[in-house]
Amino acid sequence: MTEYRTETDSMGAIDVRADRYWGAQTQRSMGNFPIGVARFRWQRPVIRALGILKHAAAEANLSLGELPANVAALIAEAADEVIAGKLDEHFPLVVFQTGSGTQSNMNANEVIANRAIEIAGGELGRKTPVHPNDHVNRGQSSNDTFPTAMHIAVVEELHTRLRPAVEKLRATLAAKADDYAHVVKTGRTHLQDATPVTLGQEIGAWVAQIDFGLQAIVAAEPGLLELAIGGTAVGTGLNAHPKFGATAAARIAKLTGHPFVDAPNKFFALAAHDALVQTSAALRTLAGGLFKMANDVRWLASGPRCGIGELVIPENEPGSSIMPGKVNPTQCEALTMVCVQVFGNDAAVAFAGTQGNFQLNVYKPVMVHNVLESITLLADACAAFNDHCAVGIEPALERIDENLDKNLMLVTALNRHIGYDKAAQIAKKAHHDGTTLKQAALALAYLSEEEYSRWIVPMDMTRPSAGH
Amino acid sequence: MTEYRTETDSMGAIDVRADRYWGAQTQRSMGNFPIGVARFRWQRPVIRALGILKHAAAEANLSLGELPANVAALIAEAADEVIAGKLDEHFPLVVFQTGSGTQSNMNANEVIANRAIEIAGGELGRKTPVHPNDHVNRGQSSNDTFPTAMHIAVVEELHTRLRPAVEKLRATLAAKADDYAHVVKTGRTHLQDATPVTLGQEIGAWVAQIDFGLQAIVAAEPGLLELAIGGTAVGTGLNAHPKFGATAAARIAKLTGHPFVDAPNKFFALAAHDALVQTSAALRTLAGGLFKMANDVRWLASGPRCGIGELVIPENEPGSSIMPGKVNPTQCEALTMVCVQVFGNDAAVAFAGTQGNFQLNVYKPVMVHNVLESITLLADACAAFNDHCAVGIEPALERIDENLDKNLMLVTALNRHIGYDKAAQIAKKAHHDGTTLKQAALALAYLSEEEYSRWIVPMDMTRPSAGH
Amino acid sequence: MTEYRTETDSMGAIDVRADRYWGAQTQRSMGNFPIGVARFRWQRPVIRALGILKHAAAEANLSLGELPANVAALIAEAADEVIAGKLDEHFPLVVFQTGSGTQSNMNANEVIANRAIEIAGGELGRKTPVHPNDHVNRGQSSNDTFPTAMHIAVVEELHTRLRPAVEKLRATLAAKADDYAHVVKTGRTHLQDATPVTLGQEIGAWVAQIDFGLQAIVAAEPGLLELAIGGTAVGTGLNAHPKFGATAAARIAKLTGHPFVDAPNKFFALAAHDALVQTSAALRTLAGGLFKMANDVRWLASGPRCGIGELVIPENEPGSSIMPGKVNPTQCEALTMVCVQVFGNDAAVAFAGTQGNFQLNVYKPVMVHNVLESITLLADACAAFNDHCAVGIEPALERIDENLDKNLMLVTALNRHIGYDKAAQIAKKAHHDGTTLKQAALALAYLSEEEYSRWIVPMDMTRPSAGH
Amino acid sequence: MTEYRTETDSMGAIDVRADRYWGAQTQRSMGNFPIGVARFRWQRPVIRALGILKHAAAEANLSLGELPANVAALIAEAADEVIAGKLDEHFPLVVFQTGSGTQSNMNANEVIANRAIEIAGGELGRKTPVHPNDHVNRGQSSNDTFPTAMHIAVVEELHTRLRPAVEKLRATLAAKADDYAHVVKTGRTHLQDATPVTLGQEIGAWVAQIDFGLQAIVAAEPGLLELAIGGTAVGTGLNAHPKFGATAAARIAKLTGHPFVDAPNKFFALAAHDALVQTSAALRTLAGGLFKMANDVRWLASGPRCGIGELVIPENEPGSSIMPGKVNPTQCEALTMVCVQVFGNDAAVAFAGTQGNFQLNVYKPVMVHNVLESITLLADACAAFNDHCAVGIEPALERIDENLDKNLMLVTALNRHIGYDKAAQIAKKAHHDGTTLKQAALALAYLSEEEYSRWIVPMDMTRPSAGH
Repeated sequence: MTEYRTETDSMGAIDVRADRYWGAQTQRSMGNFPIGVARFRWQRPVIRALGILKHAAAEANLSLGELPANVAALIAEAADEVIAGKLDEHFPLVVFQTGSGTQSNMNANEVIANRAIEIAGGELGRKTPVHPNDHVNRGQSSNDTFPTAMHIAVVEELHTRLRPAVEKLRATLAAKADDYAHVVKTGRTHLQDATPVTLGQEIGAWVAQIDFGLQAIVAAEPGLLELAIGGTAVGTGLNAHPKFGATAAARIAKLTGHPFVDAPNKFFALAAHDALVQTSAALRTLAGGLFKMANDVRWLASGPRCGIGELVIPENEPGSSIMPGKVNPTQCEALTMVCVQVFGNDAAVAFAGTQGNFQLNVYKPVMVHNVLESITLLADACAAFNDHCAVGIEPALERIDENLDKNLMLVTALNRHIGYDKAAQIAKKAHHDGTTLKQAALALAYLSEEEYSRWIVPMDMTRPSAGH
Repeated sequence: MTEYRTETDSMGAIDVRADRYWGAQTQRSMGNFPIGVARFRWQRPVIRALGILKHAAAEANLSLGELPANVAALIAEAADEVIAGKLDEHFPLVVFQTGSGTQSNMNANEVIANRAIEIAGGELGRKTPVHPNDHVNRGQSSNDTFPTAMHIAVVEELHTRLRPAVEKLRATLAAKADDYAHVVKTGRTHLQDATPVTLGQEIGAWVAQIDFGLQAIVAAEPGLLELAIGGTAVGTGLNAHPKFGATAAARIAKLTGHPFVDAPNKFFALAAHDALVQTSAALRTLAGGLFKMANDVRWLASGPRCGIGELVIPENEPGSSIMPGKVNPTQCEALTMVCVQVFGNDAAVAFAGTQGNFQLNVYKPVMVHNVLESITLLADACAAFNDHCAVGIEPALERIDENLDKNLMLVTALNRHIGYDKAAQIAKKAHHDGTTLKQAALALAYLSEEEYSRWIVPMDMTRPSAGH
Repeated sequence: MTEYRTETDSMGAIDVRADRYWGAQTQRSMGNFPIGVARFRWQRPVIRALGILKHAAAEANLSLGELPANVAALIAEAADEVIAGKLDEHFPLVVFQTGSGTQSNMNANEVIANRAIEIAGGELGRKTPVHPNDHVNRGQSSNDTFPTAMHIAVVEELHTRLRPAVEKLRATLAAKADDYAHVVKTGRTHLQDATPVTLGQEIGAWVAQIDFGLQAIVAAEPGLLELAIGGTAVGTGLNAHPKFGATAAARIAKLTGHPFVDAPNKFFALAAHDALVQTSAALRTLAGGLFKMANDVRWLASGPRCGIGELVIPENEPGSSIMPGKVNPTQCEALTMVCVQVFGNDAAVAFAGTQGNFQLNVYKPVMVHNVLESITLLADACAAFNDHCAVGIEPALERIDENLDKNLMLVTALNRHIGYDKAAQIAKKAHHDGTTLKQAALALAYLSEEEYSRWIVPMDMTRPSAGH
Repeated sequence: MTEYRTETDSMGAIDVRADRYWGAQTQRSMGNFPIGVARFRWQRPVIRALGILKHAAAEANLSLGELPANVAALIAEAADEVIAGKLDEHFPLVVFQTGSGTQSNMNANEVIANRAIEIAGGELGRKTPVHPNDHVNRGQSSNDTFPTAMHIAVVEELHTRLRPAVEKLRATLAAKADDYAHVVKTGRTHLQDATPVTLGQEIGAWVAQIDFGLQAIVAAEPGLLELAIGGTAVGTGLNAHPKFGATAAARIAKLTGHPFVDAPNKFFALAAHDALVQTSAALRTLAGGLFKMANDVRWLASGPRCGIGELVIPENEPGSSIMPGKVNPTQCEALTMVCVQVFGNDAAVAFAGTQGNFQLNVYKPVMVHNVLESITLLADACAAFNDHCAVGIEPALERIDENLDKNLMLVTALNRHIGYDKAAQIAKKAHHDGTTLKQAALALAYLSEEEYSRWIVPMDMTRPSAGH
């Protein structure tokens, strides 16, 4: 049978499961916001970030004389357990709560206070020797702590989760671009046959697009590195030590290894979250690039016989219960679905970002949730795509050559020798008669067989004319 | 040299070009809102709708004893000129103005009053015998007239512009579906070769999707047919005759031929524009269907030699200045760009739709602008696509047959005769050896040549097995 | 120590946990798609829908002579356990997988087959007496089963989850509108004081908007009631009995109590999911209405002293750790965050809906995921908002009266008695001098005190003039 | 009567108005794409950019020996007229055309060629001495020229149109922030009364947000400065001099004064337009900030008597035809409608940006159109907002003081002196009794009148406690 203890806040007493560290405000929130409970509990990144913040705040308050050493030490120890993930089950709250994240800030305060009390041998719920508000939340308000935790969580996830996964995929593709730098193939514009490119060039464009997306994310980071901490309730820093913001930010920088600073304008840092909006937009740009790449891969691998068929991709699972031998580009499908989700998440973030009023934007939780979800999904999908598709991409050389041979746009190389008009006549004759270009060219007697062989060299067409 | 006269409103006097009918409030708006002037002036549909509304209001007020007969007649006559488009140059205002459209309502009041004064032999700007507020705007407020005009404009444009264009395209495609009901071709799922369909079935799915989009638009119409007129400033109908809304709506129904009624809840009709949001969503659904269709067309027409190449589409212009003989699916490109624009417009409409406060949503102009723009663009693009592409779509029969012949998924028809496992062996052998299915089947001796010919009948595979 | 058994598919053997019913294809998918595992596993509605579908398919095949009675009975029995939720832990797959949902269809086939084998006393993984493909998936393809399950899940969730929650909130608000039909208060347009409304009218507009949203959802339902089942791989119904689709749909209708039918155009039903797009749009419309309502509530409750302060809402939790006595409109915040998420989800759905190619749209899982999430969140948030906010909304009568008394727009009622110009003079004088309207009116001597009392009757201003 | 001449292209002859310089391909496009003609013709920025590009290309070709001097000079002279806007009426084409902008590139080629021919005394349409393809389009393809023109147009518009307008508004607001640095007022979080801020701080947050938006735009510029020119048809630079791209980019840099360079990866530059996507996102971020600012302004100015009423904004036009003396925040409404449009435009841009295939994205025109429209609208709206609203914003000091006096959250300053619990008792007593804080404090006898006056100093509460 579940046992309970009594916890209190300014609204009175409430029962809490005896085996949980949270307090009255967390308990109330569970009752008030049973919204999307199965999917929308905060996950590791936000819980960890709250732990980092509370640890840093305790140290900053200690160094500024705002907390006694033993209290600060107890908070830091309990916060370390939050950071390490030992107390995740004590964070039961969901995204859809107060728009300032107040209850999640209080959840951290309560859990850390009770765990610190326990370490100190005290009684849970008695708020001594460590008080959730007066000590753990010292010099803080949800309005500055929660956005601080948001930035910590997003920066850490970008570095530890997103970048490694995307960069690994980028490296795989870059190696493929090198490997196939000499495979000449049909280019395509408007989905129509065009002048040749190398497969290396084609893949290289994907790499360049991924690089652009990664750079966009880097460009958004300075905004994320500015922390709201020190602004307290409305940005003025009321009730915080004047050096608290800078000191806490420095501690956070040290704990995380990322160069966090306190935001120069705390009013802006509470009232708007444009750094998240920009980060979300950069994730959208990256997703757009991945979407195009995945689409190219599946189209180039389409067939096997009635499509383009110029790439071979790994066969990971039976493609159909009806059609034997069918292979589907399933990794492309999962990745593009993720990209679509990132676009949706970004729409939510940008909308929420507009809806601040006066000194506060109260869409904080939904904003950080969507940014973190986009990071997770992109990272996971890039890893899966890399491991189960990209590493195994190979050219179907026979098909590539066959397509290139019959590509009428090779005629373009003749423009400089016999003029656009005669070249056009050749192309049209070949198209009309269903012959090769060479057959048409020789039939029209505009050039000799030797000239044809000398002038129509597809590999030469893949770089600016040496003739110049 | 431009001549001016003086017009007045409650803020005082202001100069207006002597050859324009508008008055002081319109003139002020021109000065206050020089935003996007080159592109964002109201066009015919909104101006015409304002004319219809003012004509109907005058008649309703007359019948309810709220206006003298001569004044009502003068207003109706001037309003008829607005309806007919004779006074369009007297409507200089842009979308981005007061969010209730107040200034465009006043623009209509002023132009109609001055033109009525002119007809009556009076002096422009003297507000007698027809006063813009007391007479033309009798029993009205911008808050109910402008949304009324919005609904009139959208309903008329849906009927006179959108539907005919979309239905013409739909008819063209339906005829093509019939024409090619017996052309059997490779089906494709996941971009991979799949069991056969007829070209008629493939085109028929486009028709069904267009039908769905059109039905969604029809389903949104009841909301549009409810008019705000009669609600005046806040929905209470203050200063309007109690029967004014219903009477005016009936007149509007008669003038337009559409079954408009007065909205049962006027407060909702002023404070939110969900009927526009739903209409915009339906336009987005239609756009989504057209997008898929246009994509299918260009992919099926891709090549001519290195793509799928199963459709031939009209060649409307030279495709390239460098590559002779290149034909691009330009109508597909224009149509899909329009669809993308419709998606963007819809995002604006839906966002704006959320932002009402209390008794008014002040995003009226931007909402109706985007809905009307989506209608115009979809109508124009469907007409262009129909005339310059759809009517000329033809199957490339040789390519279709060639693709069908080599399609390994025909093996699926053998499942019922020799079992899935042997069928799979045949498909894999053919794939591996690069042979036809028939060669592989005979080599494996799982069936006779006669049986192969009897069992593998692509056309039979395009309908539920007769064998059942 | 975890024990394993060997399962096989056409790609060979693979180990599966001995205590799980799933087979080789599910196991492969877990390895291939470790994407968002913590949050994106399919939940009850989709698992249940797959169970319903498989039960109905078995019955349909039985009645059409396509399955032996004992096999059909075993499938039905195992499927019933899926429907009842007894086997949820055997459905480990996530949203981001094959875009046709193939692996989730196979997950259902494998779990039902193995559970049926177990019931029959057979050996798991041996595919006899019940085979996942030949029996459970009889006459089916993922391409028609998964969209069928999508529609079943969405329709059920709309009816059992969304509507009750929204309708309960609607009823609460409708009762409040009745309760406060006689509370006259300041109307507001452009955020500026306007002529009076009753609180009942104000709340009634929210009810009307919710009704509009619900009707939009109802209007989208016919599309959802059309099922893809019977289309098999590409829409032709190859390998299914010609009557299978209609028969299965009828069984599904019976099992669920919703009037499902088989889709008249199966090609459209596989290649596009416009019924989901329209449903998502209707959810967005509903969300837009709830957003406006929640915004109105928090603005009207703003203060307590320096805002509008005309409504009192329940105090559910301490509002601030710094500011004693602060009450925040937290339910409004949670609800509007949900609405923002619904907007983002809808953007993902609509984008995905455009990306079908040829005979298949391969964004099925992400589409249904977002629609179901929007339903869950809206339902949960409406329930929470109802219970913790709406039921407790009360007018702050003193403040309402105070605001109404000083509202200069009451002057509008004088227009009909002393003319617009004199009325304007009164309003401007009161505004300039900071007096009451009455003081200004009497000072200007445009009317007597008795006339003022007779003509300025705020309640009369909340309905069309009786004077007419 | 309109006179015509005959123009030709590879598809044959076509009639063109004799008084127009365009040729056959432009004429065909007019016939093929009658889509949104009233609103969607290219405007100055794109036409000018095409002129700059063609001028630079001619000079580059001359310097590389690819064009004779007289031909290059003629092209440059005609292009200068395009740049200067003298030939705008010769650019009749609309956004919705070929997705590569081919016809607009040809429009430029044709107009420049014919005008050059005219200057040289030749006959229009004869393509000598200046040929539209061989000379004006020398070493170019639409696929590289059109995206080059897109970047030129956007960079120029950002610098000449957007930034000056936004920076002017920023300067106005920054000056207001300084002016009102000492006006202490009620802060608001969750729309509820909170601890004090200065009006300078409140306005300063708007300035900081605008700065963030401007920085986001700056951060996107490097991508825009990379030009596709030199890539020709597919990115390989076929038929262009190897130094053409770099040389032309340098000339463009010189002509525009912006540091354009040739893109390091031309394949990416043709196949994707992520620089536009990022620019659009930055414009969206800016719009989000402006939206919040405009919302704050209108809420703070709400009333005049029944709202917040802490700001006074200019009265630009009569607010209502019914309600005398009504002033509406119309500039806020126009600006927020523009922001909503920018959000919609961005959604279109981002969607379009995902849809490239292989060597080309064929949504170029719709992408650049939306980015340019967003720039125009934001610039115009910021200018109007600045001139007609921001410059006239003033504090309503009496109301500000009145609100501040009754703000119960001033109690927060007592926390450090008498503890949170007693402070809470004071606040609750004042709230319950409807008294001032001071009255409640003295009644509870927790502090003396002198202490109250010393401790409750609102201005001190607007900065981190000096007491630390």
